Amino acid sequence: MKEPTFRTAPAPGAFEPANFRPVNFASDNVTGVAPEIMEAIAEANAPQGAWPYGNDDVTGGLSGRFSELFDTEARVYPVATGTAANALCLSLIAQPFNTVYCLKHGHTYEDEGGAPEFYTNGAKLVPVPAADGKMTAAALEAAIVDVGGGGARLPHVMEAAAVSIAQVNECGTVYSVDEIRDICAVARANGLFVHLDGARFANAVAALGCEPAELTWRAGIDLMSFGATKNGAMAAEAVVLFNDDLEDTLSQRRMRGGHLFSKMRFLSAQLARYIQDGLWLQLAANANAMAERLSAGLAEIDDVTIDYPVDANMIFATIPGDTAERLRDSGFEFYDWGDPDRPNIRLVCAFNTDADDVDRFVEAARR
Amino acid sequence: MKEPTFRTAPAPGAFEPANFRPVNFASDNVTGVAPEIMEAIAEANAPQGAWPYGNDDVTGGLSGRFSELFDTEARVYPVATGTAANALCLSLIAQPFNTVYCLKHGHTYEDEGGAPEFYTNGAKLVPVPAADGKMTAAALEAAIVDVGGGGARLPHVMEAAAVSIAQVNECGTVYSVDEIRDICAVARANGLFVHLDGARFANAVAALGCEPAELTWRAGIDLMSFGATKNGAMAAEAVVLFNDDLEDTLSQRRMRGGHLFSKMRFLSAQLARYIQDGLWLQLAANANAMAERLSAGLAEIDDVTIDYPVDANMIFATIPGDTAERLRDSGFEFYDWGDPDRPNIRLVCAFNTDADDVDRFVEAARR
Amino acid sequence: MKEPTFRTAPAPGAFEPANFRPVNFASDNVTGVAPEIMEAIAEANAPQGAWPYGNDDVTGGLSGRFSELFDTEARVYPVATGTAANALCLSLIAQPFNTVYCLKHGHTYEDEGGAPEFYTNGAKLVPVPAADGKMTAAALEAAIVDVGGGGARLPHVMEAAAVSIAQVNECGTVYSVDEIRDICAVARANGLFVHLDGARFANAVAALGCEPAELTWRAGIDLMSFGATKNGAMAAEAVVLFNDDLEDTLSQRRMRGGHLFSKMRFLSAQLARYIQDGLWLQLAANANAMAERLSAGLAEIDDVTIDYPVDANMIFATIPGDTAERLRDSGFEFYDWGDPDRPNIRLVCAFNTDADDVDRFVEAARR
Amino acid sequence: MKEPTFRTAPAPGAFEPANFRPVNFASDNVTGVAPEIMEAIAEANAPQGAWPYGNDDVTGGLSGRFSELFDTEARVYPVATGTAANALCLSLIAQPFNTVYCLKHGHTYEDEGGAPEFYTNGAKLVPVPAADGKMTAAALEAAIVDVGGGGARLPHVMEAAAVSIAQVNECGTVYSVDEIRDICAVARANGLFVHLDGARFANAVAALGCEPAELTWRAGIDLMSFGATKNGAMAAEAVVLFNDDLEDTLSQRRMRGGHLFSKMRFLSAQLARYIQDGLWLQLAANANAMAERLSAGLAEIDDVTIDYPVDANMIFATIPGDTAERLRDSGFEFYDWGDPDRPNIRLVCAFNTDADDVDRFVEAARR
Repeated sequence: MKEPTFRTAPAPGAFEPANFRPVNFASDNVTGVAPEIMEAIAEANAPQGAWPYGNDDVTGGLSGRFSELFDTEARVYPVATGTAANALCLSLIAQPFNTVYCLKHGHTYEDEGGAPEFYTNGAKLVPVPAADGKMTAAALEAAIVDVGGGGARLPHVMEAAAVSIAQVNECGTVYSVDEIRDICAVARANGLFVHLDGARFANAVAALGCEPAELTWRAGIDLMSFGATKNGAMAAEAVVLFNDDLEDTLSQRRMRGGHLFSKMRFLSAQLARYIQDGLWLQLAANANAMAERLSAGLAEIDDVTIDYPVDANMIFATIPGDTAERLRDSGFEFYDWGDPDRPNIRLVCAFNTDADDVDRFVEAARR
Repeated sequence: MKEPTFRTAPAPGAFEPANFRPVNFASDNVTGVAPEIMEAIAEANAPQGAWPYGNDDVTGGLSGRFSELFDTEARVYPVATGTAANALCLSLIAQPFNTVYCLKHGHTYEDEGGAPEFYTNGAKLVPVPAADGKMTAAALEAAIVDVGGGGARLPHVMEAAAVSIAQVNECGTVYSVDEIRDICAVARANGLFVHLDGARFANAVAALGCEPAELTWRAGIDLMSFGATKNGAMAAEAVVLFNDDLEDTLSQRRMRGGHLFSKMRFLSAQLARYIQDGLWLQLAANANAMAERLSAGLAEIDDVTIDYPVDANMIFATIPGDTAERLRDSGFEFYDWGDPDRPNIRLVCAFNTDADDVDRFVEAARR
Repeated sequence: MKEPTFRTAPAPGAFEPANFRPVNFASDNVTGVAPEIMEAIAEANAPQGAWPYGNDDVTGGLSGRFSELFDTEARVYPVATGTAANALCLSLIAQPFNTVYCLKHGHTYEDEGGAPEFYTNGAKLVPVPAADGKMTAAALEAAIVDVGGGGARLPHVMEAAAVSIAQVNECGTVYSVDEIRDICAVARANGLFVHLDGARFANAVAALGCEPAELTWRAGIDLMSFGATKNGAMAAEAVVLFNDDLEDTLSQRRMRGGHLFSKMRFLSAQLARYIQDGLWLQLAANANAMAERLSAGLAEIDDVTIDYPVDANMIFATIPGDTAERLRDSGFEFYDWGDPDRPNIRLVCAFNTDADDVDRFVEAARR
Repeated sequence: MKEPTFRTAPAPGAFEPANFRPVNFASDNVTGVAPEIMEAIAEANAPQGAWPYGNDDVTGGLSGRFSELFDTEARVYPVATGTAANALCLSLIAQPFNTVYCLKHGHTYEDEGGAPEFYTNGAKLVPVPAADGKMTAAALEAAIVDVGGGGARLPHVMEAAAVSIAQVNECGTVYSVDEIRDICAVARANGLFVHLDGARFANAVAALGCEPAELTWRAGIDLMSFGATKNGAMAAEAVVLFNDDLEDTLSQRRMRGGHLFSKMRFLSAQLARYIQDGLWLQLAANANAMAERLSAGLAEIDDVTIDYPVDANMIFATIPGDTAERLRDSGFEFYDWGDPDRPNIRLVCAFNTDADDVDRFVEAARR
């Protein structure tokens, strides 16, 4: 199986207006803001203003709203990027001399530009072998044993403190409730906290049709990055703490990282609207459905291979030599992924992906 | 002279809806978003999306727009908070074993929650005595001499690398072009870079009526935090690099800090609109005019002292014992500032402050 | 009162053999190793070797020996430099977003080259005004109140977590048991840990003639840097933890800083011998007696002022314009200290300072 | 091939005097100090003292001595531990947002307790697959290509800045001059600095019989940790900089790490004597010869496998089930290494290993 990397991601400045293609499957973050969320932002712009730094009503009510959503008392801290959410989460559960288990092609390990190391002041991310983009409880246990399970240790070896997994993961597959529960059980038995990178959590919940609680704290997740940006928000993610044993320093750490917004209510309003009336799941449902339609169409084409199960809104496909170029000439965009000799692409559907565009893409690929 | 601190700033959660007062002079960040900027944000929400992480047209054009504004080639990096802008700037000009001269009551020293130390990986901020909230070239020179001017040194003493000043500064006064030029001359003579914290830069330029270039790179400023949030943006600041000698690592540092936005165009659109057609100066002009009106009104009241020259949009005033309480009961908000025994308050006017509200405040204070 | 700085400390490489003077009062660290300690090092060099990284008998017995010395259960970690000891201590009691109260001319603040910031990952040292080189309980309390005593706070202001004082302090004066107790009481009442920089702790104990316990944990000290290098060891200091509430991460932090010695027994042997049979106090007693003799002699000379009480082994003196040059020409060395216009020197006596040399110095100064 | 780890290294406190065995092959750091070096230390203890912090004659002459040894102008900085030397070296060649290529079972990656991450402020070590404990130029090139060879990149992916290899490496094999030259050529072609962890450099030079220059700067090494502790010193390693392009901040970084010794001459004297009159190579020659004798003896025993080529002074061997226990009962010590199901041990010979002890061990293993 090929290993996806960001090696051919677009270079800053490489996109002249002339090159821009009308339909872009490169990522769900090429999208704009869902109308409902845009309205919520406009509403937050009340003439009388509001106290800054989160001392406003919308932010004040956020922990309550999330606690209701997750059916447990949760502490909630809005930030604007997934990198900030992930790195802040890790800083709560790993000391500078600790390690955190993750996946080699996990976002946390490969694509955060050193933010986890920065926010933890030097903790080390240790990759565990993956299967279909997933960490397994068995692989985690093997990794733990390999380092020093049961044996005496010198302080030369950094001690493990945490596990971090992504849901939806970076290969587009979704952990079942049982898979997460098993990972968390191994973690707990070894004294490790578990962090969930939920940049696409909505897509996972929509795919599984389960309760948010089941996929998180009831399964043993201690804290999570709850993403909204990729699924219709402008720039809003929530750090959600489920475990009361986690130290109470997130607000200082967020400030120190420069992530405390003075006009916080504009972040909070996005998050509040996002989880209201099931909007987040409706948006994710469209993304997932479009990915299913797209992969179904591609799977029927000779010489096209779908590389991972399409559990949510991401498709990794191997397409013949010149197809990628041809598709781009027809006005479609997407990321190359993996080995240059064995063409491999990533296609991501979003909350606003249109069925006609999907069909046009399949049509173009078929030719 | 009293020393302002944030000691009585509002506690998170302290503001029940019931307590909220319709007119809030606590800070210019209690405001919302100016209509023109809200429109620009809506426009950026084009249906076809855009490449993420700054590879969009609006962001692509930003350096050009700022270069025009400053009449020089400038490198521009949008971020969402002033803390991020300041800390990232300092990380470019101070190694972990360097010191940065600043003011004791400067925002960088006192109110960034450790962000400068975090982003520089441990550099030390060293306060220089202030006069009316300003650093003087003479005080800077004296501080430099005090550490080791001319003498040999062991590596025990951290070496100075930079100076950081705020314009408008934290006492509401504005550095003249000459004052900045003198500070920069001392800095340059001692091999120090100079950073300008321009969270309220618009108010300073509006007050002085000079060209942005005169107040910055022409005077010797190497890099600045160009603020927009306090003056009508939602959450947008620009790191602006004037000096070509500055290392080219801002994009890695921004990513590592979690400050690279995927939907960057929503930040860039705010900044682009903010500096277009002089909007930023119009907004600041209102804030400054209202502060002048407010301070003029207050100055006529017996027992009220205006503590610093009101050069821009901030007023520090000493008012009699029970006046603060009475004003709050009448529906006005502001921050206490300084010594409990000698009542001292801060009032900040904003881009949308209303003359009637100002007059009502003065009226209420007079009673 | 003049403020001592290291501004005229010797430049690396400035000391050619030709310039070297036989009697050097510059510091107690210009000395070598006391014969008893040299013997202990040689004894530790047993032919059969020993387990590395502190798993040897000498290191194993060290906590017991120190616990006896301090009349309480103490955790002891040998390191080789005072900077390492101080910085590691602070890393246990201050988070990166905390502040530590100290003195402006304290070693921790001014002369550790950024090590405290490094090991705490960015905590901020905040100076408290001093009197005769000492922090007072009242000054500490005033500093605490000034930041935000009793009031609500935004995370903008770093929260205080600790106090660090030196005994003997950097002006050569010694805190009484009561003075330390008072400082610790204020600290405790405000939830702050107290660290003692005991680079010259032996000199303080010898001067006061009290029990080590009285000056430390009984007075409220939580942890200390117990110095031996300046008083006859080759390179050995002990981090001593008195407070059981301190987190148990010193061995990881020491390893991470590169301060875990493989042949640890050579450090431990120095410390074990140092505190055996009262050697440490005998060595310090000579240093103190010589300083008394030296200051008494100097005090009788016209135009010579002794700037601080000579409580232990350090003398700060103001001498007439050309005296320093003349003394150096006669073969004496010492550090200049403070203002060039008002000659001020520091003289330090050591465990092996000779009475004849002291008398010769006084004689030479008198001429 | 089994992967060595420290998993069964001795626990602190596990070694009661009663258990101590007279012959310890666990590591070369179980040894004491060679007599010649002990003498040099005693000589450095001159009665007149010396200027501290490296301003003494011995330290002053060190760069000259090393420059002669390496036949090039070298900058030399003594420190006391290999961890400090390695971490300081990496801090010169990798920014916090950079990666450093190393081996998974390299000391730098696995056994420094987070020191590299600490001193680089968060750089990431990225393992390259090894062959017989060695990095190959081809494997390095493949790793570089895998990350982003030729392609555009987002700042999400940390940029590579350096390579770090150990000589002797952690499997006891020695890189040839050509192998090092090839690695350095790939590094140079990709803009990477190369660091050599020379904790056992003497053993490598003694084994190859080549000039130190050939194995280092002439082959393309930019800087190295030159070890002495494992080969007869008490605690002394030298950071040696060959490349003039390396920034000149080592003395500040060393101070900040707490590794500037006040009585520096005791470190420098060890290093000076170590490289004088070929002492370092004589000491290493004995260690290598004893390892050859030991491995030759063991290789003749049925059921014993020597796992890696014994190029220098380390032997990795697989021995039958109960042999390890039996050898320990006979008074021999060594580290278990690797998988509990497939007994694997490490034996290290040292500068003072005795041929009789080696023969006794072989005899005991044979029974």
